[in-house]
Amino acid sequence: MKRFLTGFVTGAAALAMMAPVVAQNADEAAQAEAPKTVDEVMAMAGEADWLAPDPDSTIYMLVPHGLIVIVLSDDLAPGHVEQVRTLVREGYYDGLNFYRVIDGFVAQGGDVSEEKDKGSAAESLPAEFEEPIPDGLAFTPLGNFDGYAPEAGFINGMPAGIDRERGSVWLAHCTGAFAFGRNNERDSASTEFYIALQPQRYLDRNLTVFGRVIWGMDVVQAIKRGRPNNGGVIENEEDWTPIISARLASDVPEAELLDLQMMDTNSDVFLELIEARRNRMGAFFYVQHDYLDLCQLQLPVRLKPVEEEEGESE
Amino acid sequence: MKRFLTGFVTGAAALAMMAPVVAQNADEAAQAEAPKTVDEVMAMAGEADWLAPDPDSTIYMLVPHGLIVIVLSDDLAPGHVEQVRTLVREGYYDGLNFYRVIDGFVAQGGDVSEEKDKGSAAESLPAEFEEPIPDGLAFTPLGNFDGYAPEAGFINGMPAGIDRERGSVWLAHCTGAFAFGRNNERDSASTEFYIALQPQRYLDRNLTVFGRVIWGMDVVQAIKRGRPNNGGVIENEEDWTPIISARLASDVPEAELLDLQMMDTNSDVFLELIEARRNRMGAFFYVQHDYLDLCQLQLPVRLKPVEEEEGESE
Repeated sequence: MKRFLTGFVTGAAALAMMAPVVAQNADEAAQAEAPKTVDEVMAMAGEADWLAPDPDSTIYMLVPHGLIVIVLSDDLAPGHVEQVRTLVREGYYDGLNFYRVIDGFVAQGGDVSEEKDKGSAAESLPAEFEEPIPDGLAFTPLGNFDGYAPEAGFINGMPAGIDRERGSVWLAHCTGAFAFGRNNERDSASTEFYIALQPQRYLDRNLTVFGRVIWGMDVVQAIKRGRPNNGGVIENEEDWTPIISARLASDVPEAELLDLQMMDTNSDVFLELIEARRNRMGAFFYVQHDYLDLCQLQLPVRLKPVEEEEGESE
Repeated sequence: MKRFLTGFVTGAAALAMMAPVVAQNADEAAQAEAPKTVDEVMAMAGEADWLAPDPDSTIYMLVPHGLIVIVLSDDLAPGHVEQVRTLVREGYYDGLNFYRVIDGFVAQGGDVSEEKDKGSAAESLPAEFEEPIPDGLAFTPLGNFDGYAPEAGFINGMPAGIDRERGSVWLAHCTGAFAFGRNNERDSASTEFYIALQPQRYLDRNLTVFGRVIWGMDVVQAIKRGRPNNGGVIENEEDWTPIISARLASDVPEAELLDLQMMDTNSDVFLELIEARRNRMGAFFYVQHDYLDLCQLQLPVRLKPVEEEEGESE
């Protein structure tokens, strides 16, 4: 039964079960020669390969149909990160709306009227489209051609581009990218944010991306589109989706927190995952492409497994 | 007001208004030297650049929250196209469900139980993952590197890859791609279909794509995801999204038809659109990438403008 599904998702798992013993740790794995399936790699990930996001860099945004969790960059665009922290801490987004939601493009939210007091937040922000490469920046290269950057890869969980010749680095517009909108002026971003609904790499270095959705992207995709006016704003305000609240995780009551973990993109297992996605192994796949698009590698995120209580394992 | 929006959508339009006189026809336009904005190119498209899809190759799929319109390939995968025509004509999908909907991946529908009679449809289909290049095939090249095909481009409205050395061609897994699932056997596709929710190019040549959603992709994105089991099937059947009906446009009452038109990908204006998207001009953009990802160029689709009645133009 369910024959049309087996290969699609469980084919790789089936192969994993038939496969030789999986290496015991990441060092051994890196030396292993046989290409691995995605499921095999995921099974190799140990507790140390999963990281909890910093609660001061994590936004819980609640809309009527669900929860969206956004992680902010700890490495780039500090001005934008600090601005959104201030806005969120002061409750700026509470009661505002997603008012410009264009399928296949972005979901934009904030205060289209620009009437709400910005509190301690800046009136406008210097652009941080791209920035000098920080000393000691951890950058995990994707390892093949990218059309929108001399080199593509990952910075602590965020897809990114880097130009070593020019000495600059930036976060990429993959699905779930979190960024501020602006008008035609470079330095005009302030409060209005958008989330990419599909990859929009042509916006890279044209706007400041400074985070990404790690949970609830299905909620973002279900935000009502509505009929847009010429500027893309949904004409009928009743079709706007309200933001009930936006809080830093450090301000969310513990009982309401999700125990989320992101795969460490600086780990050996993540390097293995890149290879497993560059050439898909397993009985289901007839063609390997030896290529991986940056936005195709969605960062693995999970709810931390519940530990068995000590002393009860026997 | 609405300052955060102006640049985003209307910046290019503003530039278009300031720009020199737009060439009067596509031939002149092709000779013009100044790079154009997307809005300028779209304004150049005349009535002849818009094509209505063949009603025998168009599926109207109704779900409770809206309408999805799928156009089938007239050039490739004739076995799959004929199979789905048969299934749709005989009402096979009516009352079945979207039962495997994985955000960021695919929405799969059909009969997970495999109990429904397939009527005149084939029990299973020879794979049409890629096919010999048909004589006289119209292929509009994208014109830059593609990671998943020696050459990428468009075949009569469909994003595609081509390998001229091997002499084969296939449709690409961009967002909205319509394809049949299968198990691990090449030739096991039969009735279960999926729609790509994001680009999934690694599936190219591993499954048979034979159409694309041209209308209602927002409806597809809003299909309920639900909690999946190991195979990806939504565990709770109450969370499945029913397919009320699926009909060929030729069997839909005229009053219920939408007057949809797709931009002709063999037109000069479409070539201009490729260039306008490869390097985004206009006051909003600070960086041009000189690169266009195949799946980034969403085919323009519109409702045919209502004509003024004759004799009433003065």
